[in-house]
Amino acid sequence: VLNTQEHSPLKTGNYDRQVLFSNALFEVVQCTWAQGAAAPFHSHDSSDCYFMVEEGEFENTSYSGLETSVQKRTKNEVIHIPIYTPHEMKCLSPQGRTLHIYLPPITKTAAKDDSATEKRLFRTRTIAEIESMLPLVLGKTGISSLELQSVFAKIRQQSISVHSEYFMNQLFAGIVPEAVQAQELIASTKATMATFEASTIFTVCEIELIKAMGELIGWNAQDSEGISVPGGSAANFMSLHCARQRLFPDIKTEGNGNRSFKVFVSEHSHYSWKKACMALGLGTNSIVFVKTDQDGHLSAEDLKTKIIEVKNSGAIPLLVGATAGTTVYGAFDPLESLGQICKYENIWFHVDAAWGGPVLFSKTSRHLMKGVELADSLTFDAHKLLGTSLTCSFFLTRHRTILQESNDVTGADYLFHEEGEVKDRGRMSWQCGRQADVFSFWTLWKKYGSDGFGEFVDRQLALKDDFVSYIKTQERCHLVKDAEFLNVCVQIIPPNEKMDTDTWSKKVRDRLKEEDLAMVNYSTDENGLTFIRFILAHPHLKLSHLQEMIQWSLQMGTKESNLLN
Amino acid sequence: VLNTQEHSPLKTGNYDRQVLFSNALFEVVQCTWAQGAAAPFHSHDSSDCYFMVEEGEFENTSYSGLETSVQKRTKNEVIHIPIYTPHEMKCLSPQGRTLHIYLPPITKTAAKDDSATEKRLFRTRTIAEIESMLPLVLGKTGISSLELQSVFAKIRQQSISVHSEYFMNQLFAGIVPEAVQAQELIASTKATMATFEASTIFTVCEIELIKAMGELIGWNAQDSEGISVPGGSAANFMSLHCARQRLFPDIKTEGNGNRSFKVFVSEHSHYSWKKACMALGLGTNSIVFVKTDQDGHLSAEDLKTKIIEVKNSGAIPLLVGATAGTTVYGAFDPLESLGQICKYENIWFHVDAAWGGPVLFSKTSRHLMKGVELADSLTFDAHKLLGTSLTCSFFLTRHRTILQESNDVTGADYLFHEEGEVKDRGRMSWQCGRQADVFSFWTLWKKYGSDGFGEFVDRQLALKDDFVSYIKTQERCHLVKDAEFLNVCVQIIPPNEKMDTDTWSKKVRDRLKEEDLAMVNYSTDENGLTFIRFILAHPHLKLSHLQEMIQWSLQMGTKESNLLN
Repeated sequence: VLNTQEHSPLKTGNYDRQVLFSNALFEVVQCTWAQGAAAPFHSHDSSDCYFMVEEGEFENTSYSGLETSVQKRTKNEVIHIPIYTPHEMKCLSPQGRTLHIYLPPITKTAAKDDSATEKRLFRTRTIAEIESMLPLVLGKTGISSLELQSVFAKIRQQSISVHSEYFMNQLFAGIVPEAVQAQELIASTKATMATFEASTIFTVCEIELIKAMGELIGWNAQDSEGISVPGGSAANFMSLHCARQRLFPDIKTEGNGNRSFKVFVSEHSHYSWKKACMALGLGTNSIVFVKTDQDGHLSAEDLKTKIIEVKNSGAIPLLVGATAGTTVYGAFDPLESLGQICKYENIWFHVDAAWGGPVLFSKTSRHLMKGVELADSLTFDAHKLLGTSLTCSFFLTRHRTILQESNDVTGADYLFHEEGEVKDRGRMSWQCGRQADVFSFWTLWKKYGSDGFGEFVDRQLALKDDFVSYIKTQERCHLVKDAEFLNVCVQIIPPNEKMDTDTWSKKVRDRLKEEDLAMVNYSTDENGLTFIRFILAHPHLKLSHLQEMIQWSLQMGTKESNLLN
Repeated sequence: VLNTQEHSPLKTGNYDRQVLFSNALFEVVQCTWAQGAAAPFHSHDSSDCYFMVEEGEFENTSYSGLETSVQKRTKNEVIHIPIYTPHEMKCLSPQGRTLHIYLPPITKTAAKDDSATEKRLFRTRTIAEIESMLPLVLGKTGISSLELQSVFAKIRQQSISVHSEYFMNQLFAGIVPEAVQAQELIASTKATMATFEASTIFTVCEIELIKAMGELIGWNAQDSEGISVPGGSAANFMSLHCARQRLFPDIKTEGNGNRSFKVFVSEHSHYSWKKACMALGLGTNSIVFVKTDQDGHLSAEDLKTKIIEVKNSGAIPLLVGATAGTTVYGAFDPLESLGQICKYENIWFHVDAAWGGPVLFSKTSRHLMKGVELADSLTFDAHKLLGTSLTCSFFLTRHRTILQESNDVTGADYLFHEEGEVKDRGRMSWQCGRQADVFSFWTLWKKYGSDGFGEFVDRQLALKDDFVSYIKTQERCHLVKDAEFLNVCVQIIPPNEKMDTDTWSKKVRDRLKEEDLAMVNYSTDENGLTFIRFILAHPHLKLSHLQEMIQWSLQMGTKESNLLN
């Protein structure tokens, strides 16, 4: 049994529990504790819990968001344990009493719904299966609020468990409760970011955050600017848009014309460069793929060669896009030397730090992005490693005016009426209505501080080192690349020589998913060999989870296992 | 006193109220009622409330989301009154008892925070004022959870009140609680829409919603497709992208080249067309502005003339963009005749129905979009009139494969591994990570049904008729255009001939904002005269609110008023 986070404290805790009120929406529970009585590590996968100490002294360990805190709680102190948030508690005094409020009720959910006990990480499902389980078809008539609550509960139960430590399918994992609260606040104030008038406070949050990010990168405070964009792909898109505007301001009115632009990115760069070149009317053939070294870093030498080739051909070098933390291997391109080349050649230098950017907060790993201050612009996703809501992406630049130059148009006088000091930020975007994505990142920064982010990054990197050491002790595990960051790419060698080594890792990953053990992703190396990509993003991930996953993977196809046999 | 929604039931209700528990995070209150005792119309601007009838019989009127419901509640029945949601309740039985849970506590908020009583609709504020009121600057160290809760409460209190009936600044107003709940569920499951594997249920929600929208528009079920995009502007952008792809598939790899494309939209179309043409590398000069008739409808005659001119010039007609509900006047372009012209000329026909689209749900006003089924594609924003979270926008098309043709690229094998029946929807988008915006719309459709949406549209349109009739009785009010939809554009004639008629309406609107009376927007007509644009989107808006706003506006500058004198 692998995914045991959901349990009812009634069953495992050694304390008395009395339900004071219980109905369809909430429940009030009083617990009476003797000294040493404890509710061990658990979380509630369907209810928020608020609790208050009525009598006695308790120790509560909260695995909340990016940090774990142990705190003593005495009379009248209260704690909020959001949905999915693990905690432990123990009574320190001779006796204790606590009052808990659950929304929705935890007792009923566990009791009435059979499937609660078979909560899964993932289930390979067809659309037909999902449709039969949930009333997703839309029609003419509505349903009651209580019916809707019950549909919501079912959707939550049947959704992919990104809050599980065994979820490594994406470049994010885990739910940070403050991010959920921030999103709820955004939704219930419905701020839209086009004008200051309609979103005073969130506009200031965006200004503050952009300023803080500029300082973090190492740009001049007076020069830096930025804006939230709908995803890291959109930030890369914006870098090309701005670079083009800088070179040929008349493109804004006249279009690309017959110019042949070239964009230099590494073979391991994100596929969004292609999508951006398509949409911007440049065409995917405008991309020049620069070679990487054996560890996946963009080669400065090959870049120089390719720039010369492009210039000789009469095409226009538009932008060099480096990656800080590649999608598959987590490699950091050599920003300093690339930045110097771009400076010399006067080419826009963009850094796609969607995944690796958070190392900027870390004293010990910031060196991975040495030279970042040379960038003309940067992509940063806070929804990946830092755990904000999705999406929470930023385009940042050290050219104060370029965003407005690239995006502002006339014809919106009905909307933009700035008369005071504040520029309406819609002028810097190609969006009009724009969700206050910034607030999610602002909230986590406020809560944890930049130091807290740095400590979190360091903790994950230390875990990565431990995991890599462990991998090296395992005979049938092959580390595909040096793990610079939190991507650990591992080839599982099959237990039997007759099995196909090339495809074995993919088979293992598929089986881990089918068996509901873990959701990892896979990719293929230069030689066509598949491997598993472990992503160490979950804030509560421990070495033991990773060891477990490796052991399941190694057991497959052996006599000891009934999997892949 | 204008904005009186916030009040404490203790002060106005004639019942006994006992606080059973109260702490920093929640509060349990028990109320004892005599027959006929009532809590009149009120909402809580800072707390969610859950209540349960413990004894007796109550009548609860809930002004929830798009509908108002009156329901009897007896023992053990529970109701959730989300933040900002108005309700009234009355005890029907000789005596009654109710149990209420408030999150966060309502008593403390009202008591401890002085500014709670001076809740404002809007305050003209400088960044410095906001910074002094709220700790928005980000730094190295974090804060505690309780401190964060208190910052959140203050932000909520000081944010623009889009939930107020006097908020008409945008093409949306009011908070629909189910949309907030949907957003909370999206955030706490962190679904990302690129692959089916990572968002099984929300992918099916998107498929179902796109299907239902296609049927609503009147397209063939087998042909229609669509995808959520980050805002109506992005949907217009996508229409150009797809139209271009259809004409010249090689643009995807080769870029625009030296082609001269022309895009036909009306003078009153949204400014996002310009932004899209810039980004797509077409240039804003590719836009051909077609004349409108006196009521603001795109002229089919002028379109024909301009198409001929363009063709004669050797340029390529790329797309005709009609508007269903213009931003300022709410006018509906004549879709049927425009669609026929496009069919004849083989030009992509797009309908920007970001604002007016919901008339499709109404039996009585659907005729405004007669001919919509001729559209090749359509922009639909559910976050405007229908009240979902922002943004919740869709690009819809009757060309099943065009989205994938326009947006899919190679190089994302690490991500897209479809092996079953379901296409990964990231292939149809230029985004990678993509929030499950669809869920907000799906939720409201499920809750209210398409009939419920239709009834809501009809109710708002009936209110518009009443308001227009009222305007016509007011000597100093001039209706700028026939109000086809929920935009009512009114010129306020100054009370004194010496005052400048041209700018008076703007002065009035500014003063309404400064005095915290109402947040309306203004624009300028063909002759340079300013006018106020009332937007009737708020689901709880009544004629009396509108009459009040007109009376304040008319009083300005008169002896009876101290405003604008």
